[in-house]
Amino acid sequence: MILPPRGTKDFTPELAILWKEIVSKIESVYQKYGFDPIITPIVEYWDTLKGKYGEEAEKKEIWRFRVPQSKKWYALKYDQTVPLARYFARFRPKLPFKRYTIDRTFRYDEPQKGRYREFWQADADIVGSPYPEADAEILNMMIEAYETLGFNVYLRVSDRRALESLIEKVGEKDKFIEIARIIDKWDKIGEEGVLEKLKQITDKAEKIIELLKENPEEFYPKEFWEIIDLVEKKNKIKIDIKLARGFDYYTGMVYEVWIEGFNRALGGGGRYDNLIGIFSKEKIPAVGGSIGINPLIDVGLEKGIFNLNKKTYTQIAVIYIEVFKEAWRIANKLRDLGLNVYIDLLRRDFKKQMEYVIEKDIRYLVIVGKKDLANNLVTFQDRLTRERKKIPIENLEEIKSLVQ
Amino acid sequence: MILPPRGTKDFTPELAILWKEIVSKIESVYQKYGFDPIITPIVEYWDTLKGKYGEEAEKKEIWRFRVPQSKKWYALKYDQTVPLARYFARFRPKLPFKRYTIDRTFRYDEPQKGRYREFWQADADIVGSPYPEADAEILNMMIEAYETLGFNVYLRVSDRRALESLIEKVGEKDKFIEIARIIDKWDKIGEEGVLEKLKQITDKAEKIIELLKENPEEFYPKEFWEIIDLVEKKNKIKIDIKLARGFDYYTGMVYEVWIEGFNRALGGGGRYDNLIGIFSKEKIPAVGGSIGINPLIDVGLEKGIFNLNKKTYTQIAVIYIEVFKEAWRIANKLRDLGLNVYIDLLRRDFKKQMEYVIEKDIRYLVIVGKKDLANNLVTFQDRLTRERKKIPIENLEEIKSLVQ
Repeated sequence: MILPPRGTKDFTPELAILWKEIVSKIESVYQKYGFDPIITPIVEYWDTLKGKYGEEAEKKEIWRFRVPQSKKWYALKYDQTVPLARYFARFRPKLPFKRYTIDRTFRYDEPQKGRYREFWQADADIVGSPYPEADAEILNMMIEAYETLGFNVYLRVSDRRALESLIEKVGEKDKFIEIARIIDKWDKIGEEGVLEKLKQITDKAEKIIELLKENPEEFYPKEFWEIIDLVEKKNKIKIDIKLARGFDYYTGMVYEVWIEGFNRALGGGGRYDNLIGIFSKEKIPAVGGSIGINPLIDVGLEKGIFNLNKKTYTQIAVIYIEVFKEAWRIANKLRDLGLNVYIDLLRRDFKKQMEYVIEKDIRYLVIVGKKDLANNLVTFQDRLTRERKKIPIENLEEIKSLVQ
Repeated sequence: MILPPRGTKDFTPELAILWKEIVSKIESVYQKYGFDPIITPIVEYWDTLKGKYGEEAEKKEIWRFRVPQSKKWYALKYDQTVPLARYFARFRPKLPFKRYTIDRTFRYDEPQKGRYREFWQADADIVGSPYPEADAEILNMMIEAYETLGFNVYLRVSDRRALESLIEKVGEKDKFIEIARIIDKWDKIGEEGVLEKLKQITDKAEKIIELLKENPEEFYPKEFWEIIDLVEKKNKIKIDIKLARGFDYYTGMVYEVWIEGFNRALGGGGRYDNLIGIFSKEKIPAVGGSIGINPLIDVGLEKGIFNLNKKTYTQIAVIYIEVFKEAWRIANKLRDLGLNVYIDLLRRDFKKQMEYVIEKDIRYLVIVGKKDLANNLVTFQDRLTRERKKIPIENLEEIKSLVQ
């Protein structure tokens, strides 16, 4: 009863502060690359999402429902991309349309480490450019975003067209999607598993495996090498033709973000030229990527990249000894100076007030006592450096320069 | 098909940028008063929300549902407070627990101006203090938040205990909740309407109306005046015993935020000492308030307090004439300096590149052309002041100081 639904998460202040820092860093990188935010609703009409994610997702993963008040079917956002396509059809923004959305996503998955039923995605997409420079901009930006967050990632990169050439070469072009779906499971089921499954649908299974392991560059189109040429940090890129991510959906370059010692991708994306125009029945090229914030937090905390040390935005605790009203005025004056200030609201003694300060790890104290007040003073204290200083009340602005 | 569900809203970049500015200002005020964020899920178990909001809300307004994958009943957040109560029972944070949550809320209302089925609330609550200073802190903070946003508001303030005394005085104590519910409709149905409805349940209707119009101070308890005494801007307060807001729920001070020329409250809150402990079956005092962000945006735009002039976070457009690759490198160098930079990804000519710049109203240009490049220069231009300046490529940092 007191837990949130299975697969959802409460963020304590420490976690929410970390989350805000992560979001703010991702946003600043997205903005550096010329992306602007849009927000679309959590709730969409089911009709809008229907048929966009494949049968499997529709049956198992989409949160869809009716409410007692209406006969309409609704669904919760399954990703940020179909809502973008709907948005695009509605507003017809000038091209290229470079937008980011950092928002919740809902998938009725089986919850596991780093995987939730309600989770946060930070998506950035470029709508309207068919050119390699758009793909490259996404790759450069994603590498920078993870670096800014302190993650030493590499990007597995490939191109649907390369795998298509490979499959065509062995003469199984017609079975491309089925074969790609099997190859996509390589990480989970391994070479043996892939071979076994391929054998069930083609007698070229061994040849395919052999070619995949060779990872032959010849299959990649010219445009792919133009993308790679524009990537700034080429050492972060691992070209891997076995990456067969979502080829129901992706039409060109695809990538996944990996970190050593974690068995799933932290994010990914690619080019998808058939989705954005779906509501307006046009072909609108698009390329984008998504950062999964929940696995980032879970892995980042586990690996010590993040910590939960920051427990509050409060900078100063005004501690009073008997003189609440004067302390209250001083607290409000400090707030007028733009400082984040706590004052006890429980009429507690000095010791209890300090317990709160220690629990929340508030760095600075302004102690208001009778003796000091008689001389129009307060005592300022830095709990970290242990410095103490008497400050005249008419001179409270001085505190601003003492607080970091 | 291409519209989002009725009563929900797409935020274009201009609107999302305004939204972010509003949220950031509210957060900075909440933080100044020592509040920290928490995040709770959008989806809750229906069991958690059931019985907390009254029959009317349950029947008409709550989004509740099952998904095909499960027999569990879920519901979307109806407010930020019941999730706070659940959070409190789960984590038992040290008191006082001062948290804010800026998040979506879902009510299956009939949509109208400023009222949505999916909308944003900025809530701040103090859990654990029964004292007037907690109520006063909420009032001071709310006044400051609206002022920071540029709104000249006043707060209608009252206290459940005052109306209780009044009703007790006329001898109708037993009918308090019913009478309060009628009085709460004063703004909508006027004095006549209230009188008529009161007459249906009491023969003291005229006396009650008379006392309400007198607004007699004698009915307010000592603690209420202690709250008012601690309010910094008393000229923003209108004490009005006719304010009978949600007395199923509020137990002491109540307030609503009003602005001249808008027929609904922009926000409100009060003391509610019976909710937070509901899951742990204790009495935990609490006081808080909520800012409705959607009506704020709608009214703020209408009244010219807000505008949609800021269309992008992008500071600089790198414009190239034939020399894309060099321009690409320069764009990335400017990003390394922390600047927000756009470069065309559509291989367009100068004129088309400039059309985008004008559409998005990007202030600064860095023009990369063959002639300049031969001298290791680029041309920097401020579209606002019309200043132009040649800048050596090895000296791009200079641009940082030229950009505001």
